Amino acid sequence: MEEGSSEQLQEFLAGISPSDTALAISRLKAEEQNRLVTLLGPEDAAEMLEDISEVQAADIIEELPPEQAAAILEELDSDHVVDLLGEMDEEDADAIIEQMAPEDAEEARQFLKYAPDTAGGLMISEYLDFRSSQSVKDVLDDFQNNREEYAYYDVQYLYITDEQGRLEGVLRMRDLLFPKRSTALGDLMIANPFKINVDASLEELENFFEDHDLFGVPVVDGEGRMLGVVMPEAVESAGQERSVKQFLGFSGIIGGEEFRSMPLLSRCGRRLSWLSLNIVLNIAAASVIALYTDTLAAAIALAVFLPMVSDMSGCSGNQAVAVSMRELSLGLVRPAELFWVLGKEAALGLINGLALGLILGGVAFLWKGNMFLGLVVGGALALNTLVAVSMGGLIPLVLKRLKLDPALVSSPLLTTVTDMCGFFFVLSFASLVLDKI
Amino acid sequence: MEEGSSEQLQEFLAGISPSDTALAISRLKAEEQNRLVTLLGPEDAAEMLEDISEVQAADIIEELPPEQAAAILEELDSDHVVDLLGEMDEEDADAIIEQMAPEDAEEARQFLKYAPDTAGGLMISEYLDFRSSQSVKDVLDDFQNNREEYAYYDVQYLYITDEQGRLEGVLRMRDLLFPKRSTALGDLMIANPFKINVDASLEELENFFEDHDLFGVPVVDGEGRMLGVVMPEAVESAGQERSVKQFLGFSGIIGGEEFRSMPLLSRCGRRLSWLSLNIVLNIAAASVIALYTDTLAAAIALAVFLPMVSDMSGCSGNQAVAVSMRELSLGLVRPAELFWVLGKEAALGLINGLALGLILGGVAFLWKGNMFLGLVVGGALALNTLVAVSMGGLIPLVLKRLKLDPALVSSPLLTTVTDMCGFFFVLSFASLVLDKI
Repeated sequence: MEEGSSEQLQEFLAGISPSDTALAISRLKAEEQNRLVTLLGPEDAAEMLEDISEVQAADIIEELPPEQAAAILEELDSDHVVDLLGEMDEEDADAIIEQMAPEDAEEARQFLKYAPDTAGGLMISEYLDFRSSQSVKDVLDDFQNNREEYAYYDVQYLYITDEQGRLEGVLRMRDLLFPKRSTALGDLMIANPFKINVDASLEELENFFEDHDLFGVPVVDGEGRMLGVVMPEAVESAGQERSVKQFLGFSGIIGGEEFRSMPLLSRCGRRLSWLSLNIVLNIAAASVIALYTDTLAAAIALAVFLPMVSDMSGCSGNQAVAVSMRELSLGLVRPAELFWVLGKEAALGLINGLALGLILGGVAFLWKGNMFLGLVVGGALALNTLVAVSMGGLIPLVLKRLKLDPALVSSPLLTTVTDMCGFFFVLSFASLVLDKI
Repeated sequence: MEEGSSEQLQEFLAGISPSDTALAISRLKAEEQNRLVTLLGPEDAAEMLEDISEVQAADIIEELPPEQAAAILEELDSDHVVDLLGEMDEEDADAIIEQMAPEDAEEARQFLKYAPDTAGGLMISEYLDFRSSQSVKDVLDDFQNNREEYAYYDVQYLYITDEQGRLEGVLRMRDLLFPKRSTALGDLMIANPFKINVDASLEELENFFEDHDLFGVPVVDGEGRMLGVVMPEAVESAGQERSVKQFLGFSGIIGGEEFRSMPLLSRCGRRLSWLSLNIVLNIAAASVIALYTDTLAAAIALAVFLPMVSDMSGCSGNQAVAVSMRELSLGLVRPAELFWVLGKEAALGLINGLALGLILGGVAFLWKGNMFLGLVVGGALALNTLVAVSMGGLIPLVLKRLKLDPALVSSPLLTTVTDMCGFFFVLSFASLVLDKI
């Protein structure tokens, strides 16, 4: 690349797989990425950017002069364009939109208004629509004339709209194979086809495609005017993205993805923002121990078991959190069914609490030969497991009802409660039999 | 249902959404599910079972008499059948296969041999193949004659095979729209089409569909004979399933999904199997404290900070684990690049460790007015954060190289290391300045 022949570059990129491209590009410095994109030209750059993650692609495009950025975006599908613009600072996005062809710019502005995980945010504007009075021959002629443009379309259906753009019907491509060429589309179309409102949520779309095995669904506004098409792939990949965010959020990576190619200090800051909440929660939990330092000093062996009781209960509680989150996303439990979940989890928490309490209590008894130590430690773990499992099952439901994201908040909340209760159970039980430990 | 009119039932099920169906069915007792399926008859039962999760559907089918189970399975797509049979005990699956029509039974046995997340495990056998000497008219006639059967096919492509079933070419449906009806398929087909070996992994398939925007890819064996077609939806949903497993495994739900409709004791046992590993790891970690009880007794304030240092480091380390797992799955890091990851994470661990150490050390100092306590606690957290973040970044790469599942093992492994090191740092630093705390 130092030497800068764009043909060699194209050849090189064509020869490696998309995942290698992503790896190679992520390791380049910002100015090198910039130079690479310039060397490639808009068309090849667009193709390359489709191979890498949206966050990375948006970062690269943001650094380009707006005209160059606009030229690249015009080579991409409308839903890609909107996703990329959505990842950027508003100012940068506006500057790029200014440089786009007027109709593309208007479309981009329009599409950017829709929330990301709705039908509006997931739809593409590249679809084929005809009038019901047109014939099969008109369609085939149109195909011949616009072959090059349509080559980039995911053409599965033809949509029939009226003069106001209102959706009237739909036709499958294969419906064109059998009838006479003079047949009017209105006679072939399926009238009143399935459609989705532009505000429909990702969950509604997932349910729709679960119910209906179709290659796309038309999106309409409140007046029934057709705006675009949502493809099942877009819904699947939005669902997958949501799982990824859930996993990352659960592990304390919040505010979107982190890549190691990002600047060190911004990575530090993003991780610290979550950790600093955690340190506050941790201090709150540990303050329970501070109230009982006398008890602890009198029975120092307990210090060995304090972290174990809180850790183990945290683990048990997290299992219940995961099951609740999974059942919520599969629709196997409703957020209001608190008592049903409590019944299911309390029974499990009781059994597993007794099992774990017996083990840990047994270990404590064998270590020091002191039955009371065993009883305190085992009893505290048993009771705290019951609390943790019950709370773990309930927390995601409650958060969902409060419109908070269970993935982000469940775990810190649960851990704080199980730590506090765990420390309290061990130390307060111990203070009851302090002279015997 | 008590009254048992199957028409009413069908009407009821047709009127509610798939997610409501799933919820309703999961709350029925086993014998009620059994009765429901019998009342519906094979066709409607099959449709209903498509709406609920595979684990649940397999459980229900397993309980039926084999003839009835086979009748239901024959109404489903080949990949569904295999997935469901794969979820069952081998004995039950064999008994059901015995009752299927001979050719379906042979196909099911054949397909069951392929590993689940490979091209063989994901492909469907419902595809259309023709000879290159056949004409467009032959195809259209065949379509007319087999309309009903093909209505259930996802027909996007026609495959051209030779007498030995070896794949020769592919045709898109729309390629049939323009040419004369007498044209031979051999003249229209794309020769040497993309194909995937039956052993190809899920990752290979994901890369393929990322690279190629197709509606399906033919699957061939070592001799180039065509066996089936993998659709991108199957790959997407296998990918999503893998994310779900990852999330569940990360939270301690191992060995597949858990639903609250499962029997209590089996839920307890499954969760305990993971917890009992954790209790052993926890005992190992806590034994470090046991070695230092004298130090701890002499400076009891440290007991408040022990769980905090280990918890906070665990959190920091888990962030690095999540980033590594994500970069691995996106191909942004290779399992062998240990030093690159170590460099990136050690730098971050140093900065975040200093920040967190300052905060916690400050809290310790302010609480007791003892500078040495602050230094011990802050220093231990800083150093342990560095260890945790570095280890967290490396563990998923090492596990991947060892062919172990990072989702399952990373977190317990990391927590054990950060607990042990955290306890050791706090207590050994404290023992150096014990008379001053």
